[in-house]
Amino acid sequence: MKNHIGVIDSGVGGLTVAKEIMRQLPRESIYYFGDTARCPYGPRPKEEVKAYTLQMIRFLDQFHLKALVIACNTATAVVLKEIEQESPIPVIGVIDPGARAALKETKTGKVGVIGTIGTIRSGAYEKALNRLNPKAEVYSLACPKLVPLVESGIHDKEYAFRIVQESLQPLQDLPIDTLILGCTHYPFLTDIIGKVLGERVKLISSAEETALELSTVLYYRGLLREREGNEKPKHKLFVSGDPTVMDEMASTFITDSYRIFQADLGN
Amino acid sequence: MKNHIGVIDSGVGGLTVAKEIMRQLPRESIYYFGDTARCPYGPRPKEEVKAYTLQMIRFLDQFHLKALVIACNTATAVVLKEIEQESPIPVIGVIDPGARAALKETKTGKVGVIGTIGTIRSGAYEKALNRLNPKAEVYSLACPKLVPLVESGIHDKEYAFRIVQESLQPLQDLPIDTLILGCTHYPFLTDIIGKVLGERVKLISSAEETALELSTVLYYRGLLREREGNEKPKHKLFVSGDPTVMDEMASTFITDSYRIFQADLGN
Repeated sequence: MKNHIGVIDSGVGGLTVAKEIMRQLPRESIYYFGDTARCPYGPRPKEEVKAYTLQMIRFLDQFHLKALVIACNTATAVVLKEIEQESPIPVIGVIDPGARAALKETKTGKVGVIGTIGTIRSGAYEKALNRLNPKAEVYSLACPKLVPLVESGIHDKEYAFRIVQESLQPLQDLPIDTLILGCTHYPFLTDIIGKVLGERVKLISSAEETALELSTVLYYRGLLREREGNEKPKHKLFVSGDPTVMDEMASTFITDSYRIFQADLGN
Repeated sequence: MKNHIGVIDSGVGGLTVAKEIMRQLPRESIYYFGDTARCPYGPRPKEEVKAYTLQMIRFLDQFHLKALVIACNTATAVVLKEIEQESPIPVIGVIDPGARAALKETKTGKVGVIGTIGTIRSGAYEKALNRLNPKAEVYSLACPKLVPLVESGIHDKEYAFRIVQESLQPLQDLPIDTLILGCTHYPFLTDIIGKVLGERVKLISSAEETALELSTVLYYRGLLREREGNEKPKHKLFVSGDPTVMDEMASTFITDSYRIFQADLGN
């Protein structure tokens, strides 16, 4: 029986999406793959991102997935279209949900996007926003320091604040009223980003919006788990690198129980 | 060519949904039917609501619709499931989008719902919320005075504030952090409801969330209009009653241009 949600990411960032799925859809079980051995994907050439992403998908294919979430903006920008066309199950990326939510939220039509160099260079958010609304004004900014900041664990809050402030400086004088956190690592920094930009800018979390979109897609396909009783879902996390880092992150962040495994992608 | 979005409602309330569709999807054209001659549907028996709704759908069927939005909570609660199963085009109701968005927004899992007597009596929101999250605590309240208040035009703001305050009194001591405006008329009262309940309660507009869901559904079905150029969409509003009331409401509220027609449902 097809029953699990596959979630793939270059590393731990996609845990923000997994956590949101657990929160918004607490009956569903998640099989997560984090390619921690080769994280980050942001600076890598397209062909490499594509090859790595397909390896993760092939690995999760051995389980009974009913939907796949590409919880990595870089991978979504590079490979979503292709995978969508070939996949027998629904495939949800993290870019369009954020774009749609931003167009719902903005009052002025002026939307900011922050992301990795790869995501911003791809222009994927501009395309998604302007395909829906050609008049939307999009201001994009690559913030290459934020993923390493999150991956390092954010132990020093003052240091983190300074890095975020420096990274977002170019946005300060722009007329945006909405900012898409265009990288699944960034929700770990939501509070700090909110303080730096103030209340005038509404933050859109790709993680929250992607989980909402998954909920919608499963509903229309009749794939939601509507079990009676209180059987808890069984989550599994697979990593290509050392499981310790993933376990540290997940154990402080994920409240559902899960099991963690190291997995060989065979390359 | 299937190109238009059908939107149906018991009266003018669905204009909040139509307006949100125009805002979030400015390339799409809308064919709206408001059954103003027989509004409100809220207090009517199920069979009547069903018959009236099917008449509106049959009327709009003569045009080339690519999707249908039932922009009326009462009609969604009574007839959506049946129509969904028989319709060759996607049908979007206003209840599930609000329920999903509320589960995204709530931090405490305690969600309030206000609606017409018919919507609240149907238990449709509780069902939608608990199907996704059995632990969500739902507090429902029928507010029969609010639709007539909106339909009357809200000319006296102080009077409107007093009616809203009285209607929402039973919610004041409840621990909810999120409130679903479970009637498409209510977004006309968003500011007043916000003042009455204060900042602790996040308001979910069925209108905004339904337009977002339409955007998502059209995307996954490959039905979004992605025209080049700046050709403006042509909206049409049909009413079963006197077009003057609809035109008054629409002309102050809808910024896109539209044409209005009186239509006979042949009953």
